[in-house]
Amino acid sequence: MNLIKKPVTGMKDVLPQEAELRGYVTDVIRRTYASYGFQQIETPAVESLANLNSKQGGENEKLIFRILKRGEKLKLDEARTPEDLTDEGLRYDLTVPLVRFYSAHQAELPSPFKALQMGPVWRADRPQKGRFRQFVQCDIDILGDPSNLAEIELILATTKALDNLGFSGFEVRIGDRRLLKAMAYYSGFAEEDYDEVFIILDKMDKIGTGGVRQELIDSGFARDAADKYLSLFAALDGKSGEESIRYLGDTLGDCLEEGCAENLLEIIDCVEKAKSADFALVFDPTLVRGMSYYTGTIFEISMPEFGASAGGGGRYDKMVGKFTGQDVPACGFSIGFERILLLLTERGFQIPSQGKKQAFLLEKGLSAQQTREALAQAEEARKAGDQTLVVRMNKNRKFQKEQLAAQGYTDFREFFK
Amino acid sequence: MNLIKKPVTGMKDVLPQEAELRGYVTDVIRRTYASYGFQQIETPAVESLANLNSKQGGENEKLIFRILKRGEKLKLDEARTPEDLTDEGLRYDLTVPLVRFYSAHQAELPSPFKALQMGPVWRADRPQKGRFRQFVQCDIDILGDPSNLAEIELILATTKALDNLGFSGFEVRIGDRRLLKAMAYYSGFAEEDYDEVFIILDKMDKIGTGGVRQELIDSGFARDAADKYLSLFAALDGKSGEESIRYLGDTLGDCLEEGCAENLLEIIDCVEKAKSADFALVFDPTLVRGMSYYTGTIFEISMPEFGASAGGGGRYDKMVGKFTGQDVPACGFSIGFERILLLLTERGFQIPSQGKKQAFLLEKGLSAQQTREALAQAEEARKAGDQTLVVRMNKNRKFQKEQLAAQGYTDFREFFK
Repeated sequence: MNLIKKPVTGMKDVLPQEAELRGYVTDVIRRTYASYGFQQIETPAVESLANLNSKQGGENEKLIFRILKRGEKLKLDEARTPEDLTDEGLRYDLTVPLVRFYSAHQAELPSPFKALQMGPVWRADRPQKGRFRQFVQCDIDILGDPSNLAEIELILATTKALDNLGFSGFEVRIGDRRLLKAMAYYSGFAEEDYDEVFIILDKMDKIGTGGVRQELIDSGFARDAADKYLSLFAALDGKSGEESIRYLGDTLGDCLEEGCAENLLEIIDCVEKAKSADFALVFDPTLVRGMSYYTGTIFEISMPEFGASAGGGGRYDKMVGKFTGQDVPACGFSIGFERILLLLTERGFQIPSQGKKQAFLLEKGLSAQQTREALAQAEEARKAGDQTLVVRMNKNRKFQKEQLAAQGYTDFREFFK
Repeated sequence: MNLIKKPVTGMKDVLPQEAELRGYVTDVIRRTYASYGFQQIETPAVESLANLNSKQGGENEKLIFRILKRGEKLKLDEARTPEDLTDEGLRYDLTVPLVRFYSAHQAELPSPFKALQMGPVWRADRPQKGRFRQFVQCDIDILGDPSNLAEIELILATTKALDNLGFSGFEVRIGDRRLLKAMAYYSGFAEEDYDEVFIILDKMDKIGTGGVRQELIDSGFARDAADKYLSLFAALDGKSGEESIRYLGDTLGDCLEEGCAENLLEIIDCVEKAKSADFALVFDPTLVRGMSYYTGTIFEISMPEFGASAGGGGRYDKMVGKFTGQDVPACGFSIGFERILLLLTERGFQIPSQGKKQAFLLEKGLSAQQTREALAQAEEARKAGDQTLVVRMNKNRKFQKEQLAAQGYTDFREFFK
């Protein structure tokens, strides 16, 4: 019986050329974040379903790969639902594991703790082009810092990583969940409707103000509320980011938490002055971000050549408390690793050269004496810093050398018997 | 409700200090193997159970984390066995995925193909000290090379990686499955009993020749066969590796596949002459290696300070054929990543210094102007190559600086309002 050659549905094999690029991007990101003092941690791929299903993961909780119980714990006869058969699953993001990790090890970690996590996550999404059921996430988070120094450092470090990968001229859009809620409250929406309102607002860039207004009304919201809401956005037309934040701060008055507008202004001011990468930090009052756990600032990376977001994050001050009973301020920024990789590939990105690559081709039947000699020379070349491949010579030597040249080998040495 | 803080049973969180060491070791290994022309690939964590349970994985097949089917495929009412509920599982090694990968992509890969894989694998082993249910494996394999150049290169590259990590004075023991079988055949054991005989032989270093003889007899094997078998080993006493191989070649005669002894001699000769790391390649006729898929040469790393094996591998020429119907010669060497890490930690290994680490401590309430200034200076320091942490100053500044000093920070700058 022949076995199955293809990877499982929705997951992919990574061939050498792509693996090399993935390794390079990983290195650049890791080095950049280390230079900002972020410390790498690792958490297991498997988490308990109690944590994964704790409403922190939003829609992702429907996409969990569940792991079958084993041994005596598996009671097949009594099982009525999938819940009876499983108590662990594959993580769907790195945030829930990070917060669990922090809750378990808080006493051993510095405060504030600047964490870096890079690793695969799994989501049983419907397979579609360019989306996979296993993909890498890359998150930095600062736990234990209530001040906006956290947001500033996260934005500076993330944009620097993108800069080191050759990206420029992009935007980081910034908003605040509290501002978003205040605008809805001010307009007369009920708190239980906010999520629905924000889902509609999130379409602003696609359907425009008219479209948002119509959809709000079609969804049964009061015409007055919709009009008041959209007039807030309309009033920002032509205003700079700074002017917009000041205008909203003044207009919303007591509807908005004190210091929220000033906080945004300070982040934008500090980042714009301290940044060494080429990007713009832009206030965007329509920015929503899906995850319901955000409690304050939210941000998202927009690349001009890429429709969707290439990363994002925000503040989530209430999640550690779900584990420990005591809230700890937390803020994170995630780079869309797979999207960055896609963009680099589309641009024909070449990894900076890393020294000479030479191949030693050894004819079949070479004597032990000759083989030893070739191997010793190869060791010498490696000591000198050259990547040196020793490989059996194929019958079609010309084709073999073409293949190797395509892999970047420039120097060839042939050993005949 | 408070959530679960601990990692799931048998898996562990990796704290920053260990994560840094893991990253360093990974980098050294990857760079070393790249210098030998090995190309990294990645395969998904999840494989189909048809492949995982194809008798290539030996005992590991009992330790698979199975993933529950989803949606319409999950027929809970009709399910009688775990098999009915699952068709995918987490990989328990990197060899089955590599061979599947090679079978799927053979046409796109060079021949011979020198592959490097590093990644986590999962085994639902009984939890015990120092053994985890998720751990990293690190394999190099050469596919498509029938010659012993494969073995030679695998041994040179693996030992060089260990050398680059500071290991010396260790042994690589080498044997051959065909020699092992010929010795059993010559002694009169039946082929169906080989596995049982080898399991007993494998205890030679613990129970000695007398113990092995007794256990063979206790297991019901003929006294004659046991005596003849052990006389073969006794005859090697005092002989060098080369003399032992020649003696066995002569004595076993037609029982042994032609060229098998010469092959071993050639590998040992070439490695000993070409090696640039400090280790000995030692012939060991009692070396068994558990996996039944090995078809020829087998090898294992012995560290003097470490009881168990720190890595191993061998030739498995029949596994690709299970996927494609056509055999492809294959040979691999796996470094015991977690064991290497344990050894380095026990030795108090220090990662070579990577430039200055300085921390900027910013007092709470610093003005935006002062913050900007500190951030800009930090960016300058990073440009100059210093790892620069910007962090909120804690009330207990002395303790914070002690913590940072323990992380390797040597320079501190404090910014007061």
